[in-house]
Amino acid sequence: MSAQHVIATYIIETSLPLLHAAEVLAGEQSTGTFVRVQRESDDVRARFAAQVESIQEIPLTGASRLPGAVGDPADRRRAVLRLRFPLDNFGPSLPNLLAAVAGNLFEIKELSAVRLIDLDLPAAFAERYQGPRFGVAGTRRLMGASDGAMIGTIIKPSIGLAPSELAEVVGELAEAGIDFIKDDELQGNGPSSPLSARVDAVMPVLHRYADRTGRMPMYAFNITDDIGRLEANHDLVVAAGGTCVMACVNLVGLAGLELLSTHTAVPIHGHRTMFGAIGRSEQVGIGFRAWQKLARLSGADHLHTNGISNKFYETDDEVLDSIAAVREPLLGINSTVPVLSSGQWGGLAHATYRAVGTTDLLVLAGGGIHGHPDGAAAGVSSMRDAWASAARGESVHEAVERSDALRRATEVFGPVRA
Amino acid sequence: MSAQHVIATYIIETSLPLLHAAEVLAGEQSTGTFVRVQRESDDVRARFAAQVESIQEIPLTGASRLPGAVGDPADRRRAVLRLRFPLDNFGPSLPNLLAAVAGNLFEIKELSAVRLIDLDLPAAFAERYQGPRFGVAGTRRLMGASDGAMIGTIIKPSIGLAPSELAEVVGELAEAGIDFIKDDELQGNGPSSPLSARVDAVMPVLHRYADRTGRMPMYAFNITDDIGRLEANHDLVVAAGGTCVMACVNLVGLAGLELLSTHTAVPIHGHRTMFGAIGRSEQVGIGFRAWQKLARLSGADHLHTNGISNKFYETDDEVLDSIAAVREPLLGINSTVPVLSSGQWGGLAHATYRAVGTTDLLVLAGGGIHGHPDGAAAGVSSMRDAWASAARGESVHEAVERSDALRRATEVFGPVRA
Repeated sequence: MSAQHVIATYIIETSLPLLHAAEVLAGEQSTGTFVRVQRESDDVRARFAAQVESIQEIPLTGASRLPGAVGDPADRRRAVLRLRFPLDNFGPSLPNLLAAVAGNLFEIKELSAVRLIDLDLPAAFAERYQGPRFGVAGTRRLMGASDGAMIGTIIKPSIGLAPSELAEVVGELAEAGIDFIKDDELQGNGPSSPLSARVDAVMPVLHRYADRTGRMPMYAFNITDDIGRLEANHDLVVAAGGTCVMACVNLVGLAGLELLSTHTAVPIHGHRTMFGAIGRSEQVGIGFRAWQKLARLSGADHLHTNGISNKFYETDDEVLDSIAAVREPLLGINSTVPVLSSGQWGGLAHATYRAVGTTDLLVLAGGGIHGHPDGAAAGVSSMRDAWASAARGESVHEAVERSDALRRATEVFGPVRA
Repeated sequence: MSAQHVIATYIIETSLPLLHAAEVLAGEQSTGTFVRVQRESDDVRARFAAQVESIQEIPLTGASRLPGAVGDPADRRRAVLRLRFPLDNFGPSLPNLLAAVAGNLFEIKELSAVRLIDLDLPAAFAERYQGPRFGVAGTRRLMGASDGAMIGTIIKPSIGLAPSELAEVVGELAEAGIDFIKDDELQGNGPSSPLSARVDAVMPVLHRYADRTGRMPMYAFNITDDIGRLEANHDLVVAAGGTCVMACVNLVGLAGLELLSTHTAVPIHGHRTMFGAIGRSEQVGIGFRAWQKLARLSGADHLHTNGISNKFYETDDEVLDSIAAVREPLLGINSTVPVLSSGQWGGLAHATYRAVGTTDLLVLAGGGIHGHPDGAAAGVSSMRDAWASAARGESVHEAVERSDALRRATEVFGPVRA
């Protein structure tokens, strides 16, 4: 028996006394049931019960109560609650951990809000889970991008391109000098453009470019599918010389990602699609800070964080916190590359760099590259110029002065964000 | 190319004109991006675009808007939206289907609520996915319960029992005449009571009972763990003569469940823990009616639906809709047994039976059996008597008249619910 623990941090809201509600949660998620039963001895409780580590009241947000919450709405209080779970309750198994820290608790009617927002895990998890095999350094090496922000794009239209059209697009993007290209998460393994046909169409284009220039852009083929097919999908990509596979973490599951990571020979590009289902509500679910730790331990070399000024619901502060979270050390495992996407273009480089202070990022622009008035090559240049300028500490004004491509981009996408 | 489609049904809420918001959703989830791009031809749109099938306004619920929603809150309207997706966009792959019907859409800021509530899937999914291998008939055969409600219980305390104590509890429950026993979802494979030790402790007890009586209660060992361990965990149970494995569907993932189903030699007991993270909010996530179809196609022989008068947040109407949903035919695949649990006891049999009209149910009582004033055997009798009485069409009054065990239960748990 070790004396190690997991600390799970929640936001809860309740009309009961805060400590009582916290104890309901702790009991439900460890030794308790609704009545004390035979053999639930004091010794069992002492060894296995989850304990309230701290509880700190915070202001209500104005969000409405979860359905089924009991008590008088006027009595509601909100708090940050830290619970301590003995590691021995589940061992260093991510799926079994989740049963304790994120299982039935979301259904507790004594809580009118319950969100898991962070997890502090003991080293035993890193002994069991290797985390990313490639991380920042391995990704840079494979794409031949030794410094600066890594610039990438998403194939658009998301779906509908024939493999021959896809090959054309990829050829144009390679010539434009891009570091990274990815399938859209909607492009899986459908009959009109199956994975094998995409690999057959794309890889010769990339090889020809690499033979000529010595550098092959990384293409993240979306291999998301039934878990029994992931290994074969991965092997198909790698056999053709591909250097990245993309998995939608929530669609193969964190556990599916972990299985893939034990097999992969290339970086895994972790897409977060469906995250909004657990992440968007203020009142229930799992926050990005907690979720990204699970995804990193499960082997995501790249992980989508969203970008500032994005087209989705998240605020810049939330996005920046997500990027910072992915960059924080985690139990000594390899780094994960934050992936900034959605509404990105060169004009966001300075504001992003000032907030994050690094270029160890993969920045994806769809419209920001394809929609540049002088074409995709100018789009890539505008991104690269802007990030290099930001990293040199130049002002926005200097950046636009020095880069024709960025200046032209501002004519379509508006002024550079300071 | 087939002409088949998937229909996804959502509840949405928006401050934009309803049809416009619906089209934003449809575009994001098929061919669109925020600008029309090169090669997004009319032909591509015609073949691949998701289409609004119907949209019907419904009243607002009073729930607050999702974070980041745009527009004037006063302009909000709520609707049931049915979208039609060409099957060719993803093929009959559940993970790839989810990218389209439940991917980025939860993050759309034009929507102040977005919930996937149902899915109509074409037959191609049942050609690819076998669904439950055992279902109702296979489960009844293995537990030797040819008719009547299947009566089961959960080991309590949830965690903390030593394997030797577990063996004692299982022996008592077998003698009590129970059909089914399960590990708690919190009992995974931790160091204090690892799966192998539980199997070694429990199976000899069950074999001795079966040798004497000719009937072995079904024990659902919780084999939830990393996907790479599921097969070995399953094989350990089956090699010892076990007749059921339990998997927490959301912890191994739907895709992990599906992989297990291709290997299993016994029924899979599908626990829904963590469902509240996607299911509880009125404003975001995935409803049980949609989720249970995915779990059944992925091979869940048993699926937790909750029970009436439960200790969690769901109303009786919601629970009864969940039970009805699991019992509806699905593309010709095998049946799945609804599992009623949480706060169950004999006194809920009549009200439940009147609403569902079947005894093809697995009804789990923890406190309702362990907490019976005359012990577990009387607890089991009270459950069995109550369900038999309900199925015979007797009144609650007759049931209590005819069963001492049920009458004694009412002294602890209150009157039988009519």
